[in-house]
Amino acid sequence: MKQFINTKENLVTEAIDGTLRTGGGRLARLDGYPHIKVVVRTDWDKSRVALVSGGGSGHEPSHAGFVGQGMLTAAVCGDVFASPSVDAVLAGILAVTGKAGCLLIVKNYTGDRLNFGLAAERARAFGRRVNMVIVDDDVALPDLPQARGVAGTLFVHKIAGALADRGASLEAVTEAAERVISGVVSIGMSLDTCTVPGSPKVDRIGPGKAELGLGIHGEAGIEQVDFVNARNAMAMVVDRLAPHVGPGPHVALLNNLGGATPLEMAVLAEELVQSRIGDQVRWLVGPAPLMTSLDMQGFSVSLLPVTKADEAALSAPVAPSAWPGCLPVGPVEVLPLPDGLTPILPMPSRNDATRRFIERCCRILIEAEADLNALDAKSGDGDTGTTLATASRALIDALDRMPLADLTQLYRAVGLELSQTMGGSSGVLLAIFFAAAGDASSGGEDAFGALRSGLDRIQEVGGARQGDRTMIDALLPAIEALPQGLAAAAAAARRGADFTATITKAKAGRASYISAAKLEGNNDPGAEAVARLFERLVAIDTA
Amino acid sequence: MKQFINTKENLVTEAIDGTLRTGGGRLARLDGYPHIKVVVRTDWDKSRVALVSGGGSGHEPSHAGFVGQGMLTAAVCGDVFASPSVDAVLAGILAVTGKAGCLLIVKNYTGDRLNFGLAAERARAFGRRVNMVIVDDDVALPDLPQARGVAGTLFVHKIAGALADRGASLEAVTEAAERVISGVVSIGMSLDTCTVPGSPKVDRIGPGKAELGLGIHGEAGIEQVDFVNARNAMAMVVDRLAPHVGPGPHVALLNNLGGATPLEMAVLAEELVQSRIGDQVRWLVGPAPLMTSLDMQGFSVSLLPVTKADEAALSAPVAPSAWPGCLPVGPVEVLPLPDGLTPILPMPSRNDATRRFIERCCRILIEAEADLNALDAKSGDGDTGTTLATASRALIDALDRMPLADLTQLYRAVGLELSQTMGGSSGVLLAIFFAAAGDASSGGEDAFGALRSGLDRIQEVGGARQGDRTMIDALLPAIEALPQGLAAAAAAARRGADFTATITKAKAGRASYISAAKLEGNNDPGAEAVARLFERLVAIDTA
Repeated sequence: MKQFINTKENLVTEAIDGTLRTGGGRLARLDGYPHIKVVVRTDWDKSRVALVSGGGSGHEPSHAGFVGQGMLTAAVCGDVFASPSVDAVLAGILAVTGKAGCLLIVKNYTGDRLNFGLAAERARAFGRRVNMVIVDDDVALPDLPQARGVAGTLFVHKIAGALADRGASLEAVTEAAERVISGVVSIGMSLDTCTVPGSPKVDRIGPGKAELGLGIHGEAGIEQVDFVNARNAMAMVVDRLAPHVGPGPHVALLNNLGGATPLEMAVLAEELVQSRIGDQVRWLVGPAPLMTSLDMQGFSVSLLPVTKADEAALSAPVAPSAWPGCLPVGPVEVLPLPDGLTPILPMPSRNDATRRFIERCCRILIEAEADLNALDAKSGDGDTGTTLATASRALIDALDRMPLADLTQLYRAVGLELSQTMGGSSGVLLAIFFAAAGDASSGGEDAFGALRSGLDRIQEVGGARQGDRTMIDALLPAIEALPQGLAAAAAAARRGADFTATITKAKAGRASYISAAKLEGNNDPGAEAVARLFERLVAIDTA
Repeated sequence: MKQFINTKENLVTEAIDGTLRTGGGRLARLDGYPHIKVVVRTDWDKSRVALVSGGGSGHEPSHAGFVGQGMLTAAVCGDVFASPSVDAVLAGILAVTGKAGCLLIVKNYTGDRLNFGLAAERARAFGRRVNMVIVDDDVALPDLPQARGVAGTLFVHKIAGALADRGASLEAVTEAAERVISGVVSIGMSLDTCTVPGSPKVDRIGPGKAELGLGIHGEAGIEQVDFVNARNAMAMVVDRLAPHVGPGPHVALLNNLGGATPLEMAVLAEELVQSRIGDQVRWLVGPAPLMTSLDMQGFSVSLLPVTKADEAALSAPVAPSAWPGCLPVGPVEVLPLPDGLTPILPMPSRNDATRRFIERCCRILIEAEADLNALDAKSGDGDTGTTLATASRALIDALDRMPLADLTQLYRAVGLELSQTMGGSSGVLLAIFFAAAGDASSGGEDAFGALRSGLDRIQEVGGARQGDRTMIDALLPAIEALPQGLAAAAAAARRGADFTATITKAKAGRASYISAAKLEGNNDPGAEAVARLFERLVAIDTA
């Protein structure tokens, strides 16, 4: 498994150094690499309660990413998915704890509990005031005597951090942390496992399946469920959380386990708000990667009932940029479209021959969708066929409102229709083409002259010339040959399209980023579309 | 390919709604779904220059994630990797542009250039003052007439955004944007392609290979290179950038293309700073996902020469939480370890028999590494063997400084050694075991009694009892049988270890999160380690 690391052994220390070097001077580490990996605030005077957390690495930005004013004072980092040693924890405690004392925030794993617990004992033997809280927010296994600590830990960091920052006593900070722990519940779901550095990836989740109630160290989920879509996935997660959710407002934390895209996370946020507990979710932290499991394509939801005091603590600004803020959940505000977007619509009119001709052209392009996509995939992003087919379908649907009997108006209307329904460069170029043809037609050009004007315009705006490996290589000779008839135009278009396969240096469009070897022998998909259109029109004419 | 989406068609609109709903009321969208997908600031009075950017989706947090005070005024979103339509861009411009005018910031792709360009023309026809700049920062292809716009676009958003926020004129904002564009260079590298929603994944990067100079829409890299490690990868990227880097201080932007873990990105940050241009990198934005390509496991580096004015503009606080800040790059600050970590070392002493015995035990555990890892992989994270073998190797190396002639001191020294070199729960439990055995020995217990005291202590701290499917299930009967000799202890340990395979409900350790079906028939790896240790000791004794 390829990863951007140097060695498995130095991964965490190098990553910590990278983080510190680019942390703007607000973070330092203790001496003692490789065994002692402790990140501490440099802007810390020990005047208030210190918050120390940590555990195995692989959960970034947890925990080093949350060291800073308003959150953690120190993070004690183990190797990937391995608890830090007692000495490392002890070093962290001793480095940051003053008279106000220290709260250890520990996720409920045997290793962390033992190492932090032993370190706390040793620190107390040195006369330090140290309290410890164990976070056990995971509700995946209802009958488990020792629930795991997962992303809900972030609520403890933030709320205890805000209190400590305001100068609260160790007792008050500890009490708040324990209250948060008793209230918070979390559960995760994933479509894939994580890739542990230096280990082969375990591929245990089958096609069409998701894991529900998984851990953050590659532990298997408590069950494999059928994966349908984002809505269904969030509903399953909410079903597991709902029995633990009392009445009243809650704050949710939507955690990216590492490998879900921001698009997926935003869809999941929408589904959480729309879910059966959505009305109770008044505040949201995220969606963001907060307590990750390396590159796992999954998410977790944590819920905490909130008071006004919690809202204030959660909203208080903090130094760590990894904290995404805690924002009120609201409706989607939709503003009316500005004036100027609704052009005057032409009067629809009938012309059965024109209608049949346009439908015929559209159907040819719809039929060519898969072929053109496949061709485009060799030199671009594989969507030329879909772009043209989508436009064609929209155009067929729009024919009833088209001024079919007036060629000038029709050119303009086709251009307008395409500009309203399509993205993609071919779409806009076609829209410009027809808009310019309409202009030329209204200026007295005949049908051929109007098309030629449209072509001039797209060369001007798009910047492509004949020989640049674009649709112009087929369109230009076809339009020039059109006065000699459709068959001549089709033959010219085919020669032009086939010639593009010999052009190994594209000068415009996405193909211009592709190496010669990948272009050679493949027609440009836009030119091919033009050639196919004319060829099929001839075939139908002569059929 | 499984993804947390509902339908490909509604992906972007649902994601935008999810983003708006959880944006704390500072963002709205224009009406006109699905064709018009425009995100705008709600706290905007048109008194200053509006900044409008956008393009295809799939690059999140670009561009909607950067709408807010200090950065963009509106983002015009297309479908995934598809330009938005002219009407969508026009709607965005008209919605936010007042008398101060509007700057369009467009990445250099034909589609975006055409759509934004046409929209600008139409907006000008409505009397709006609209300027447009084209970002072309990609240096992947040195001879390309039209370089692509990639992550360097963020510098334009931020610097132009800061100027506009301070009330600069359209001319001044445009000039600053053009100056940034003329100075910024970027290049990307990836280990994997991205997964386009609704399309099968193209797997074109071979094992051991990386793509250099790739695009952000799944376009193939300009070359496939051998992938060695993070250092080598960054060196290749820096080699491509270096010819474009003049003297003087620069700001770097280290962009996660989507699927690289924060650990990988932090290592890459360290490598960038350590690279041959590292001395010139005085400021860093990121590492962070800024201009992603869905889930691509890759990164890009953008470099911009900076003036004092640029530093101020880049450091100015902004509303969008996706902006990670721009921080000065500095040395890794290393603080000395606090007092109290360096215990008094016992005086080394010789005892050849004891030394041979300890070495023998360690070698047995080192030999069992792979077997125990394999067993642990069935119920845990597969590291029991490595944890024990690592400890054993460290212990062998430490024997020269051990008080081998004094059993009490030796127990303590072994405990200390383990606590200093190991993480992982088995490690700490063994450290506690020996530390407690040393205490008991110093209190007058004999060797058997001391071991028994150690066992009592790990049950107390770790919370596990016999029958909980832990190493105690083998260790307890073995120590109880030890007075009857090593063979009796080995037999008892084996019975205890094999019994764990029938315990389908673990009550402690990570196995407690695993379902019964996965536990049945597999010995607990800790208990198995104990049984193997005793069995092999007997085998050596009788050999």
